[in-house]
Amino acid sequence: MKTRAAVALKAGAPLEVMTVNLEGPRDGEVLVEIMATGLCHTDEFTRSGDDPEGNFPAILGHEGAGIVREVGRGVTSVKPGDHVIPLYTPECRECEYCLNPKTNLCQSVRTTQGQGLMPDGTSRFTTEDGDPILHYMGCSTFSNFTVMPEIALAKVREDAPFDKICYIGCGVTTGIGAVVNTAKVEPGSNCVVFGLGGIGLNVIQGLRMVGANKIVGVDLNNDKKAMAERFGMTHFVNPSEVEGDLVPYLVDLTGGGADYSFECIGNTNVMRQALECAHKGWGESIIIGVAGAGQEISTRPFQLVTGRSWRGSAFGGARGRTDVPKIVDWYMDGKIEIDPMITHHLKLEEINKGFELMHAGESIRSVVVY
Amino acid sequence: MKTRAAVALKAGAPLEVMTVNLEGPRDGEVLVEIMATGLCHTDEFTRSGDDPEGNFPAILGHEGAGIVREVGRGVTSVKPGDHVIPLYTPECRECEYCLNPKTNLCQSVRTTQGQGLMPDGTSRFTTEDGDPILHYMGCSTFSNFTVMPEIALAKVREDAPFDKICYIGCGVTTGIGAVVNTAKVEPGSNCVVFGLGGIGLNVIQGLRMVGANKIVGVDLNNDKKAMAERFGMTHFVNPSEVEGDLVPYLVDLTGGGADYSFECIGNTNVMRQALECAHKGWGESIIIGVAGAGQEISTRPFQLVTGRSWRGSAFGGARGRTDVPKIVDWYMDGKIEIDPMITHHLKLEEINKGFELMHAGESIRSVVVY
Ligand SMILES: NC(=O)c1ccc[n+]([C@@H]2O[C@H](COP(=O)([O-])OP(=O)(O)OC[C@H]3O[C@@H](n4cnc5c(N)ncnc54)[C@H](O)[C@@H]3O)[C@@H](O)[C@H]2O)c1
Ligand SMILES: NC(=O)c1ccc[n+]([C@@H]2O[C@H](COP(=O)([O-])OP(=O)(O)OC[C@H]3O[C@@H](n4cnc5c(N)ncnc54)[C@H](O)[C@@H]3O)[C@@H](O)[C@H]2O)c1
Repeated sequence: MKTRAAVALKAGAPLEVMTVNLEGPRDGEVLVEIMATGLCHTDEFTRSGDDPEGNFPAILGHEGAGIVREVGRGVTSVKPGDHVIPLYTPECRECEYCLNPKTNLCQSVRTTQGQGLMPDGTSRFTTEDGDPILHYMGCSTFSNFTVMPEIALAKVREDAPFDKICYIGCGVTTGIGAVVNTAKVEPGSNCVVFGLGGIGLNVIQGLRMVGANKIVGVDLNNDKKAMAERFGMTHFVNPSEVEGDLVPYLVDLTGGGADYSFECIGNTNVMRQALECAHKGWGESIIIGVAGAGQEISTRPFQLVTGRSWRGSAFGGARGRTDVPKIVDWYMDGKIEIDPMITHHLKLEEINKGFELMHAGESIRSVVVY
Repeated sequence: MKTRAAVALKAGAPLEVMTVNLEGPRDGEVLVEIMATGLCHTDEFTRSGDDPEGNFPAILGHEGAGIVREVGRGVTSVKPGDHVIPLYTPECRECEYCLNPKTNLCQSVRTTQGQGLMPDGTSRFTTEDGDPILHYMGCSTFSNFTVMPEIALAKVREDAPFDKICYIGCGVTTGIGAVVNTAKVEPGSNCVVFGLGGIGLNVIQGLRMVGANKIVGVDLNNDKKAMAERFGMTHFVNPSEVEGDLVPYLVDLTGGGADYSFECIGNTNVMRQALECAHKGWGESIIIGVAGAGQEISTRPFQLVTGRSWRGSAFGGARGRTDVPKIVDWYMDGKIEIDPMITHHLKLEEINKGFELMHAGESIRSVVVY
């Protein structure tokens, strides 16, 4: 079949919207009509050429929502008409990782996914001239129709709006999941969130949902304050306005240090501050931000010996097929909010404008509606 | 009263054995006759002058066992004749830390203890000329008689030999506790232990006790192999004999990485190796070793984002009054061994020889028996 898609032809170039060929689903695969997709930093990281593992040409996009249109042989968990959210971290429920309750990092299709291919080692996309185009993070939601492995689809309720729940495919789950699955924050905890972008806001509303006490937000940009307060932030700190060192200031503000701190920027210096503002004896610091290639974090080991833990979170520690439908329910039940974070709706033809808004810091999330 | 003690008169000097004055116990304090004391690296760290927080003159020693001889007003939990192990990490059961189940770092007497003083801000020791001598880590077990806060004494059974259980006052609890309390290692886990000295051996026997599967020991000194095997090590690795990088070698040997790794040396480069050989998705690395002043640990944050945790352990995460008597029971029940680790018995007059044996790597533990 033919479908419209925004294609990353080469590193650093704007995406090009064109018609491409899409082969139907093979065994264990599913054809999905993508109804809406968010634009995430990770897409931009690859598009820009900064990602050393980026492959081209490829159809990017990994934060979508859509409808199953056709299933390949052996597919049993979804059927045509089902509403689904694509999962860049699949959940096969059979690999060593899925069977270990301590991790969400299903490895079943990791190698081929990293190469931009379906699990059988081939691509379903070609140009109109017949040249292959790669998949991306196993999703390629910047195509109106895409093919995905069955194990990478979360089936969700049908009354949820696509242009909102697509954000659960990455940002919402990453932030809320880091609170709920990775840190397992207890009610009454005092927490510090570094970076009040799309991820940080979701950490903040996750903390509000689980009943955290102080929710301190840290950002260099004062414009982020109002929105973060709307999502539950109780104290705002702009490091450039703090006299003296930031870490002791935050330790004071939290009454001895954060029970949990979250780094949602990707800055290795901030990661250190996030660890060191954690409470002696039990404070845990969770890294969510993705640092530039080759950058390293450091601290004195005494920080750990005296009881702080340094951890990280990928896709919010969520097992997608199991956890994503629950987060959709939380949204529909009003336990969490998404609408105010979807700041821009775009047509596929306008997709490059979405990356411009991201760079200008004007959007929280731009969503392409097909 | 008068007592014999080995006194650290100034940084870097050998200890001097002399008679000193000891004032009786004040409110909440206890006079203990020390029957035996181990010599630990921490004593030597302070004696040598390397410890930037060391104060002199002081009576060092923190790994002892003895008998209560007199109690001050208000003391209810011990009485004369009770056998006790001094605790450099006390357990008041009332401070914010004791009331938080996530930590063992009771802070109730921290400030005065760090200054070498009893909780009321004074010392009980003076020279025969009446000049004050400081306490050390709240214990000063290099004195035949010492005064301690009641909250820093674990009451233990009376049939346990002093010259063995003194080691539970630091090394044994630090190693076994890191396994049991900090890491909470599950049966069947694959583990790597870096450094097969007094601490590493106790980590190894802790792992054996809880039913770990592979117990890989890493040491530059091949002479450590036999003893470590005796305590449960299943595989020995000498990094200087490994071709290529140590980390991938250990990942292979453990079938994908260590579920738990332990650094028992104090070397920041090894701490990084210990983290990076932990299993993707769930591996935890526990720092026990104490690094030199100012040294830092580093890694790429991706190591944490992909599921590894970096933690530390002090006094094995043990709450001394509660946990130390249990470890004495484990020893008496044969669940753990101590006897082969006590390699040298010394008289107080020979105490400096103990530090020489430590430097020469000839002892696991030297114990002074009064
Ligand atoms: N671990 C995961 O699974 C995962 C998933 C998605 C995104 N991410 C990563 O999360 C990070 C955040 O993503 P986002 O979409 O929220 O980004 P964003 O750009 O929307 O937000 C970053 C925020 O940090 C603030 N900031 C920048 N430097 C700062 C500093 N030094 N101190 C304080 N504040 C500072 C900015 O003003 C901005 O508000 C990125 O690194 C992204 O790659 C991780
Ligand atoms: N966290 C705590 O509560 C606590 C308590 C007591 C001691 N400690 C610390 O634990 C550490 C270990 O103490 P110990 O008494 O077992 O010391 P030790 O000297 O007896 O043992 C260290 C071992 O490490 C080996 N080693 C040295 N460098 C190595 C390297 N690069 N690679 C592999 N092996 C190497 C040595 O050969 C030796 O066998 C020290 O730093 C000590 O200060 C911590």
